[in-house]
Amino acid sequence: MAHIEVPPGVPGIRSLFVNHPATAKPMCELTEVLLRGPSPLSPAERELIATRVSRGNECVFCTTAHAATAAHLLKGDRKLVADVSEHYETAAVSPKLKALLAVADKVRKDARTVSTRDIDAARKEGATDADIHDTVLIAAMFCMFNRYVDGLAAWTPEESAPYEEIGSRLARDGYLTIPGLFAPDSARKKTGSP
Amino acid sequence: MAHIEVPPGVPGIRSLFVNHPATAKPMCELTEVLLRGPSPLSPAERELIATRVSRGNECVFCTTAHAATAAHLLKGDRKLVADVSEHYETAAVSPKLKALLAVADKVRKDARTVSTRDIDAARKEGATDADIHDTVLIAAMFCMFNRYVDGLAAWTPEESAPYEEIGSRLARDGYLTIPGLFAPDSARKKTGSP
Repeated sequence: MAHIEVPPGVPGIRSLFVNHPATAKPMCELTEVLLRGPSPLSPAERELIATRVSRGNECVFCTTAHAATAAHLLKGDRKLVADVSEHYETAAVSPKLKALLAVADKVRKDARTVSTRDIDAARKEGATDADIHDTVLIAAMFCMFNRYVDGLAAWTPEESAPYEEIGSRLARDGYLTIPGLFAPDSARKKTGSP
Repeated sequence: MAHIEVPPGVPGIRSLFVNHPATAKPMCELTEVLLRGPSPLSPAERELIATRVSRGNECVFCTTAHAATAAHLLKGDRKLVADVSEHYETAAVSPKLKALLAVADKVRKDARTVSTRDIDAARKEGATDADIHDTVLIAAMFCMFNRYVDGLAAWTPEESAPYEEIGSRLARDGYLTIPGLFAPDSARKKTGSP
């Protein structure tokens, strides 16, 4: 049971958003711009970073939800998602993404340990300032979301169906989809833009 | 030196905000609503939680900036700020805030460890759902900000003058004060509302 009152039957962070719309709105907007807005990283790569960080923090809800989202964006390639979240060093992703995942891991554990050498290694594989910025902020943001969900003990379903629904929706519509918080067509407009 | 290009002479998180306004805007809006919007916790209490969490994460920039902000909101009581950030258990704050600071510490370290007993202890001292929600989210949010600042090695001034300026400004005007991101009078309008 969650530590505070939440609407029954609503899983994870959305149950917190429903009763706390004033903070939910900027959190959803931040997520939309960071995971779906302009970036040298594809939405799938950004969801992979989110999944990896959430798994490191052992937040089951966020890990499962974003793994499902990443898989949807990767045309169902669940093996790649599992590989990245469990042992990215040997996963079939670009050397640039591997170097950025190393940075994300350090940000999650202790951001002060990100070194010039880590950054240089990423740049050597083609990472730009935007890659590095977005990776660090995605890792940092999921350190927030993981704590928000688990610190309040939001409902974490055990069956897979709710995560499938979430992953399919987030992959298709993005993060501006909470009824009442955003205009009904804002999600469609967002994902329709380049 | 920061790991990515930032405007010279701009300290801490603001240097990241300047070159990344699309993510800065929702982050500032979240901070404003969570630290200055309606809450059973006073702005000073919320800045104390922010300072405590930032110190636990050893983020010097955020700790010093929010300690200065809290001190400004507490009419200059720097001793109280230092007491809370170093050993809140014996600080001159309410039993409710102490119980919430215990929750914030757990959220920072491993949010999954927040127990029903921790929450019950806070409720026994008068904490409501809103107190608990806001405490958990403030702690979570500063786990994001601390990592954003230190993961990108943003400039952390060593002298105290910049923090005094920041603390005085944040205490007076809040968080919607970045030129170009918000309308010139939005800060004033915000702080002028109840």
